[in-house]
Amino acid sequence: MTSSDRIRSATFRSKIMSADEAAALIASGENVGMSGFTGAGYPKAVPSALARRIETANAAGQRFRIGVWTGASTAPELDGALAEVDGVHMRLPYQSDPTCRKRINAGEMEYMDIHLSHVAQTVWSGFLGKLDVAVVEVAGITEDGRLIPSSSVGNNKTWIEQADRVILEVNSWQSEALEGMHDIYYGTDLPPNRKPIPLVRTTDRIGEPYFRIDPAKVAALVETHASDRNSAFTPPDEASCRIAGHILEFLEHEVHKGRLPKNLLPLQSGVGNIANAVLSGLNDGPFEGLTAYTEVLQDGMLDLIKSGKLSCASATAFSLSPDALTELNADLARYRDRIILRPQEISNHPEVIRRLGVIAMNGMLEADIYGNVNSTHLMGSQIMNGIGGSGDFARNAYISIFMTPSVAKDGAISCLVPMVSHVDHTKHDVQVLVTEQGLADLRGLSPKQRAKVTIDKCAHPDYRDALRDYYQDALVRAHGKQTPHILEEALAWHVRYLRQGTMK
Amino acid sequence: MTSSDRIRSATFRSKIMSADEAAALIASGENVGMSGFTGAGYPKAVPSALARRIETANAAGQRFRIGVWTGASTAPELDGALAEVDGVHMRLPYQSDPTCRKRINAGEMEYMDIHLSHVAQTVWSGFLGKLDVAVVEVAGITEDGRLIPSSSVGNNKTWIEQADRVILEVNSWQSEALEGMHDIYYGTDLPPNRKPIPLVRTTDRIGEPYFRIDPAKVAALVETHASDRNSAFTPPDEASCRIAGHILEFLEHEVHKGRLPKNLLPLQSGVGNIANAVLSGLNDGPFEGLTAYTEVLQDGMLDLIKSGKLSCASATAFSLSPDALTELNADLARYRDRIILRPQEISNHPEVIRRLGVIAMNGMLEADIYGNVNSTHLMGSQIMNGIGGSGDFARNAYISIFMTPSVAKDGAISCLVPMVSHVDHTKHDVQVLVTEQGLADLRGLSPKQRAKVTIDKCAHPDYRDALRDYYQDALVRAHGKQTPHILEEALAWHVRYLRQGTMK
Repeated sequence: MTSSDRIRSATFRSKIMSADEAAALIASGENVGMSGFTGAGYPKAVPSALARRIETANAAGQRFRIGVWTGASTAPELDGALAEVDGVHMRLPYQSDPTCRKRINAGEMEYMDIHLSHVAQTVWSGFLGKLDVAVVEVAGITEDGRLIPSSSVGNNKTWIEQADRVILEVNSWQSEALEGMHDIYYGTDLPPNRKPIPLVRTTDRIGEPYFRIDPAKVAALVETHASDRNSAFTPPDEASCRIAGHILEFLEHEVHKGRLPKNLLPLQSGVGNIANAVLSGLNDGPFEGLTAYTEVLQDGMLDLIKSGKLSCASATAFSLSPDALTELNADLARYRDRIILRPQEISNHPEVIRRLGVIAMNGMLEADIYGNVNSTHLMGSQIMNGIGGSGDFARNAYISIFMTPSVAKDGAISCLVPMVSHVDHTKHDVQVLVTEQGLADLRGLSPKQRAKVTIDKCAHPDYRDALRDYYQDALVRAHGKQTPHILEEALAWHVRYLRQGTMK
Repeated sequence: MTSSDRIRSATFRSKIMSADEAAALIASGENVGMSGFTGAGYPKAVPSALARRIETANAAGQRFRIGVWTGASTAPELDGALAEVDGVHMRLPYQSDPTCRKRINAGEMEYMDIHLSHVAQTVWSGFLGKLDVAVVEVAGITEDGRLIPSSSVGNNKTWIEQADRVILEVNSWQSEALEGMHDIYYGTDLPPNRKPIPLVRTTDRIGEPYFRIDPAKVAALVETHASDRNSAFTPPDEASCRIAGHILEFLEHEVHKGRLPKNLLPLQSGVGNIANAVLSGLNDGPFEGLTAYTEVLQDGMLDLIKSGKLSCASATAFSLSPDALTELNADLARYRDRIILRPQEISNHPEVIRRLGVIAMNGMLEADIYGNVNSTHLMGSQIMNGIGGSGDFARNAYISIFMTPSVAKDGAISCLVPMVSHVDHTKHDVQVLVTEQGLADLRGLSPKQRAKVTIDKCAHPDYRDALRDYYQDALVRAHGKQTPHILEEALAWHVRYLRQGTMK
């Protein structure tokens, strides 16, 4: 099959051109909304062509830079290629690319971290300036000119609506069976015209399976046949398995106490090794009829669907290993009734997350003894990725869980510290902390009570006494005893690490 | 009129007793849900009677302490009296009482700070333990046994539903014209049974004007005739007026740019001098047909209703000066069509705030150069009041504004610092910072860009150069340049203040 078969509309076929020709339609200084969410559904050809163009311009002494707005993280062909040639003046809302991260932390690229649920409305309201161009991968175009979304939805609806010009990449590598899997909701609006979002079950379809588009806006169509970025699945390590064990035990306890239904509540699970371990644990666990309302579908979710434990998963993107992807694509029709991909303004919408009562499970870099969480900045200054959707989920969840191994860098870093070096989630939004050491249930506790439980349950033995010493000392010396801190020493662990390479 | 006239149901009349008799129904160790929100509608007699009982018990060597859950802040007769006798083991969700604050900061009383919108659902879900008793002030009881809410709604619906026993205070001092002003929504539920909240305009009434109650739960009825706590209105000072001026100019600019409708969007306004100054400014300003969706109705809101500028105000409580209160009570029927009092789970509901697109204006203690906000803790450890509803509004607002004078304590404290000593609102939730020096519009900016604008626009001249020096130095020395910090020096301003009484 060639990708032309995917373009069933003659109107659109006339716009077919090369990636270089399409990239030539983007001007320096423009803001470009690109598709892509956790390495799925990003444009494969135009960003690299644009990077080559920028490199040529730079070599000729012409500064060429654009603003890059996406769904979330993309891939080397997009973030990597554009960062490599220093072609980005502002990046938002989430990235995880090594080259991109290097540029940002070198102070060479501006990066705006923003809740994923806030992006679409902030662009609509005009607060980020004009969106000039959209570059969006789709899986195909119907006879009547509607777009079949790809392996992620992200902010594509918003980009297509808000941009002056739209460049489409039609990727024939994406499975044809994606058609019908998406639910694109066209009922959002700006205030004062907003209405309730009529989603009350994870399985509800409230929109349509296609993107609408004004054909007059289509500036280019580029055909591709290229794989999404996929990372091989590494089996969970021991720490991840122990974290998963603590969470499962906690959930069973909550069911036993009558505080959670037997089939739990919709699960949200961050991306990565720990998250996959939790999902794997659920697959071996006692719960049936589970549901998921989350951002990203990982291997673990697919396994839960296969085993019949998970009856439905709603997300905005896939993020699968090559093996899982092969399996999914070979048998997508089988999964289709149980998977819904939505725009990220819906997958992450506070209104819906709160209504459904999601159980939010997110990773973090560090937490402090009072349960404030740092998800983004190493040693206070250096960005790792971004807050992503963790704030959308944690704030509005029924139960908000954050998890991390208790130490990092072979024990040189304690992930529990006296005071976090950067705050992404305040203690108000953090109900449960989990490390391989144990689980701290912080619900209903004052800061002092939280400190005791956090240190006892979650701290690594190598750091437990030092944390207790800090807390006891603060309790005596602090200026006020609601949240006792000694400000001279609160960040000393981080300072020590920066100077000596260890917090010990 | 005696308050018995307010008790139109014979069933309830049989439960009338003295405050002391009612207080005797509360046992040590119990959790008590009390009415009250910003000094309005709190019980006037039972808490003081209970405090006397506790004092006697303590004198006899019997430790007597209870958990006190409210709507928000109350009054000396409640928080003050109970704190005075050390009768509270856990207080939530918000307080502003001097005696209470002293106990908390001395480490003698546990205090749990929690988003006001989270309280009801957290109690329903059982995360805070059992609610044993409710002590709720009402304005009257109808023939068929429904309760006429008082001058605040707060969490009263939840307390009445969740407590085993209910003690009612019927306060004949409250205006009879309150009847019909409230909108008590009975459609909330626990997941997975939640439905959309059908509120799309600030004027929408989605519930009923009364609390429902199971008469079998009523343990006591106590008659009172006592005024709410009210503070005299102080005319705004110069700094407040300048802050108000900057905000008005900003709003006009946004309307001019087409980013806000001509009648703006529903206003949320915190309590206090600056908030009143902004409201007063709006009264003299160009906007017509304003609406408010907020927590508390202050004098300024009433003035806006009187002048016809504000067509409708939705809140959960009044917080008026004695003069404004006299005027309101004398003429309540006139205001009734334009004022709706709702449970705080609705006034502060993320779903509704986001849908309506509220313009949130909240005070703060300090902000840092990157726009993180501290609303609660002096010098990192000492609690002032609590986060209240500021998080509910800031996170979900269409535009989120935080305001403070640029200095405090006669200039010894800069309210703009390198790093805040405590975070209640992360930079993701802070779009606009305002001091009397100017307004920093942080929308669409990276942290480095935010720092420049914040220092230039908002810092006091006495501290501006020092902030610039810190930032420039951090830009050179920081380990990463996304959010440049020098951790050894980040909290040095606070340390200096604690040691020397000044940040200079």
